[in-house]
Amino acid sequence: MSKDGRPDEDGLIARYFRPLATAPGADRLLDDAATYRPPQGFEQVLTTDAIVAGIHFFPEDPPGAVARKALRVNLSDLAAKGAAPAGYLLTIGLTEDWTEDWLSAFCEGLSSDQKEFDISLYGGDTVRTPGPLFVSVTAFGLTPEGRVPRRTKASVGQKLYVTGTIGDAALGLKIRLDDGVRTRWGLNSADAEHLSARYLLPRPRLGAAALVAEYASAAMDISDGLAGDLARMCAASDTGAVLDAGQVPLSPAAKKAVEADPAALSAVLTGGDDYEILAAVDAAKSAAFEAAVAKAGIAFTQIGEIVPAFTGRVRIERGGHPLALDRLAFRHF
Amino acid sequence: MSKDGRPDEDGLIARYFRPLATAPGADRLLDDAATYRPPQGFEQVLTTDAIVAGIHFFPEDPPGAVARKALRVNLSDLAAKGAAPAGYLLTIGLTEDWTEDWLSAFCEGLSSDQKEFDISLYGGDTVRTPGPLFVSVTAFGLTPEGRVPRRTKASVGQKLYVTGTIGDAALGLKIRLDDGVRTRWGLNSADAEHLSARYLLPRPRLGAAALVAEYASAAMDISDGLAGDLARMCAASDTGAVLDAGQVPLSPAAKKAVEADPAALSAVLTGGDDYEILAAVDAAKSAAFEAAVAKAGIAFTQIGEIVPAFTGRVRIERGGHPLALDRLAFRHF
Repeated sequence: MSKDGRPDEDGLIARYFRPLATAPGADRLLDDAATYRPPQGFEQVLTTDAIVAGIHFFPEDPPGAVARKALRVNLSDLAAKGAAPAGYLLTIGLTEDWTEDWLSAFCEGLSSDQKEFDISLYGGDTVRTPGPLFVSVTAFGLTPEGRVPRRTKASVGQKLYVTGTIGDAALGLKIRLDDGVRTRWGLNSADAEHLSARYLLPRPRLGAAALVAEYASAAMDISDGLAGDLARMCAASDTGAVLDAGQVPLSPAAKKAVEADPAALSAVLTGGDDYEILAAVDAAKSAAFEAAVAKAGIAFTQIGEIVPAFTGRVRIERGGHPLALDRLAFRHF
Repeated sequence: MSKDGRPDEDGLIARYFRPLATAPGADRLLDDAATYRPPQGFEQVLTTDAIVAGIHFFPEDPPGAVARKALRVNLSDLAAKGAAPAGYLLTIGLTEDWTEDWLSAFCEGLSSDQKEFDISLYGGDTVRTPGPLFVSVTAFGLTPEGRVPRRTKASVGQKLYVTGTIGDAALGLKIRLDDGVRTRWGLNSADAEHLSARYLLPRPRLGAAALVAEYASAAMDISDGLAGDLARMCAASDTGAVLDAGQVPLSPAAKKAVEADPAALSAVLTGGDDYEILAAVDAAKSAAFEAAVAKAGIAFTQIGEIVPAFTGRVRIERGGHPLALDRLAFRHF
């Protein structure tokens, strides 16, 4: 126990983090390191992403939502690589004024997501920072050997698909920053809540991961905006892409916003924080993929296709006509 | 390229981090995730540690040394688990005023250590922070299956050993904070430089890892002070320990300091940043261990033994008499 009545690092680990280390390899966080062995026939997939207060989330966001966002942005990367998540390591930089109430709620958020996604904490580090709170997560999962869909593997003729709906989080952020847009877009409170919730809490599409591993040649999660991330996939694969804006799946709330304010479409296509999966599937496999997706009851919508490389990489069309957007990607750095 | 002339995140990855992603599984950082498969017969060992400017290092430290410290505090954890390092993921939180010169030198530090320790970058995240710079690393390595020495596995009668010399970094930090102590301790500039260098740049004892995996029952790296970390090992194993201060290996510089100022002994035994390995070896194996250590030319010194648990966990003796220290562990949190 430290002088200010709050637990020291060992006490803090024992009280808050030990209950989260459920895997045997985590050895109840009694050690500085954990052990892990992927089962036969699987590859380990590793990813890391950090979030910083005031940059990636609002400092006043509920601590449980902050925890879940930190975890889920990583799980979303795993889902896009066709991986079932297994565990994670977490570093948290706490400010001087941290409270046990805050940390307790933060860990409840982790615990709730661990149960939902069947994962364990495997290790961590707790440090002090004079700056804003930050959370850095390294997550790992398992994909059948040789099946990891790489960004680099898109090729001409492949069909492009996305899970769920696009643009909700970007619109939710706009509402959060300026409540007036809600009225301008003619949204009721349920619409606004839907969009805000999508910004606050990503929904990693882990239910789609197995189908992604089975059918997709290339895949990535959409975190920095559909158009910009698609351009990244094209750059990594040295291809281009045509995106049909009319096919991009929108939630009822996003549809209302786009109908009321055509500028909202730009936010939808280029805003960040979707955490949906973008997948490129061989044309020869697309019928089987669509059948499997329908059978599994997963929303996976065709939105365009891979074409030969050209300057700019991505052409957005609507009704066969090119659509100009003011910027391609949300700049989060 | 961003408006201020510095590269955006993609450009920054391409220019500085891609050359560090030498393993095939890292896919040249073109993806959000890497793949890894431990070879047959090995366990993956995972660890994570972060460092924050102004807390764990001085903001004016050379960027290459900051990078190497961030990496090495993690490699030290791997060494203490008997692991050969394989790779790491790195998150860096850059302040608004970051420069390409700084980042370039930071990455040169990583590159130099990657060559020295034969490891690859497997992924990362670059974020902005309004607060001080931070670096969070998750490192992984390989230990032969079933051989990972756990903190929890110390038992009564085992002999305690440490690598290298203890206390140099803690004394180096004192010199850095108050140059006057150098004169009080009667140190010449070579002594002072030795101690300061040990604070600036940890030396993970990876050369000792294979012997630790082969002989040690319990092991950990000493990062928060020998006495306090030994108490942690005892708490995890529910044992006690007797530490013979007279046996604790000291560098010539640390010897001078302790002779000139008995209070320096407290800093030596309880100060942080040693990054040496503390290992508990079965008495029956200790002769073979000492022979193997001598043959390998590794400094591994016996400093005490594990005894039944008692309140306080660790008794420090010198010449058979108890030695009282004002505090057990460096409080870094």
